[in-house]
Amino acid sequence: MAVSVEKKYYAGIDIGGTFIKCGIVSEDGEILIKDKIPTEKEKPYQYIAGNIAKLVKALETKSGVKIQGVGIGCPGSVDSEKGVVVYTNNIAWKNVPLSAELEKLLKIPVKITNDANAAALGEYSLIKSKYKSMIFITLGTGVGSGIVLDGKLFEGYKSAGAEIGHQVIKVGGEKCTCGRKGCFEAYCSTTALIRQAQKAMQKDKHSLLWKECGNNIEEMNGISFFAAYDKQDKTAKSVFGKYIKYLAEGLVNVANIFRPEIILIGGGVSAQGDKILKPLKRRFNALLYGGAKYAKVELDIAKLKNDAGLIGAAFLNE
Amino acid sequence: MAVSVEKKYYAGIDIGGTFIKCGIVSEDGEILIKDKIPTEKEKPYQYIAGNIAKLVKALETKSGVKIQGVGIGCPGSVDSEKGVVVYTNNIAWKNVPLSAELEKLLKIPVKITNDANAAALGEYSLIKSKYKSMIFITLGTGVGSGIVLDGKLFEGYKSAGAEIGHQVIKVGGEKCTCGRKGCFEAYCSTTALIRQAQKAMQKDKHSLLWKECGNNIEEMNGISFFAAYDKQDKTAKSVFGKYIKYLAEGLVNVANIFRPEIILIGGGVSAQGDKILKPLKRRFNALLYGGAKYAKVELDIAKLKNDAGLIGAAFLNE
Repeated sequence: MAVSVEKKYYAGIDIGGTFIKCGIVSEDGEILIKDKIPTEKEKPYQYIAGNIAKLVKALETKSGVKIQGVGIGCPGSVDSEKGVVVYTNNIAWKNVPLSAELEKLLKIPVKITNDANAAALGEYSLIKSKYKSMIFITLGTGVGSGIVLDGKLFEGYKSAGAEIGHQVIKVGGEKCTCGRKGCFEAYCSTTALIRQAQKAMQKDKHSLLWKECGNNIEEMNGISFFAAYDKQDKTAKSVFGKYIKYLAEGLVNVANIFRPEIILIGGGVSAQGDKILKPLKRRFNALLYGGAKYAKVELDIAKLKNDAGLIGAAFLNE
Repeated sequence: MAVSVEKKYYAGIDIGGTFIKCGIVSEDGEILIKDKIPTEKEKPYQYIAGNIAKLVKALETKSGVKIQGVGIGCPGSVDSEKGVVVYTNNIAWKNVPLSAELEKLLKIPVKITNDANAAALGEYSLIKSKYKSMIFITLGTGVGSGIVLDGKLFEGYKSAGAEIGHQVIKVGGEKCTCGRKGCFEAYCSTTALIRQAQKAMQKDKHSLLWKECGNNIEEMNGISFFAAYDKQDKTAKSVFGKYIKYLAEGLVNVANIFRPEIILIGGGVSAQGDKILKPLKRRFNALLYGGAKYAKVELDIAKLKNDAGLIGAAFLNE
């Protein structure tokens, strides 16, 4: 733990459906100390805010630094200007004035944004000297995204934009949780990959996918899927090939619209690294509008994994 | 013609494959005088630049004002920072340093951007007091677009972004000029509408579409299409219904990604006004992520028609 009196420190908070994580983070992104508490999402928001405030104070004391502010990444729709969680499915919050509630308890500035935006800011902090624009895509339960333009988080009107997962890439296609059919998320989330694997398994009783999930199709997950893939299972390879195809189409759309300098891929599936990156780059560069040479768009795996949200949230006060 | 010594004036230029249009435009968007010359696109760019310079000088003299700068809207890929036309299909230019060439001849600043961007700036000038963000979509031979974020034109890295027409909305769908399959442009340009009408006519020999194009399917155009539609032709109505469906999907994608305050629709098809706007709004609002109430996205028809590019180009020097 390298504490400096010249540095500024912040608390970064990552709210999830199960746990709330908090870290004391330096202005250059170092986590001095971190801890987590259960979300207790069935309790009123004032109770949860009370728990967050206690956690922040305890970690501040332990860390031995004085924090300048608190930043929060929260799932769902967040009005970052007003500091209000407009709506979140995971915790059943609606119009919760979380910033105000915590500022009352902590007497320091509290900023809040969507969790994917926070993670995007965390990842961007590592590359900001090199790139002015970045799109961050997380492939998890859903497809989350964060957009950095001209070095700043772009959230759209009332923070309601940056829903890259909810671009339809196949009109009339797979049903999406948002009510539309054919969204990027409905093809490229981990959930979608598993669903596609389960469908394909049904047609191939000899696929290793069966063995890897203990012959219980409901137990199929990312780990069992890639275990079968790594053993060259034909069905797993075919499912993955299609997954990469859709992923490339969605990312090329984003690249044609924003022409960012770099796109970073995070979330569960991104742990596969080159297995995803190599075939993806090939397709991506082949499809890019006007070709891949002029105004090159880099494609890479995000680096911070589970800490991206904590670190990025802390940076909201910069 | 209301000339004021307190106002600033600029020349706005709209380069097309057939004509080059120029207008002397006041800082509040009034065109004092305008004229056009043939593009003569087969001639070297220095010759064309010479013609543009002569046109600008002639109009400046006639207008009786002194212009502060020149702005150009040009089709294709334009690096606005460097003032270079990277590539344009219509005139077969490649890496043409048009700004530098004209500055040499005119001795005043010359800025350049893509023609859809220029038109977007023109349209935005009418609404800038009310909206900070706007997406402009032109439905013409292709689908062009211009993006205004936080009151400024957004062009992406090396001006290569804002290619909203080249988002795939149907993986594996209709072939697009960009090499991909299923682009927004391949479903929602005027060209695409005509192609869809031609396909549908083949299956319905009794459609009024035949009569409206003089029984010559090659002569089918937007005017004959909407003439049949206005007479309640079943086939034309069915084609139009599908067109609106795809248009809504593409625009909702853009709205979910940018959540702009307003989307303006220009280009040939937009002349149909409410015929397009009403069914489009219904679908658009029904599909928008998180619903249409929070962070409402307005949808409207662009106002400036053919002068949008001239006026917007003039504003490049502001």
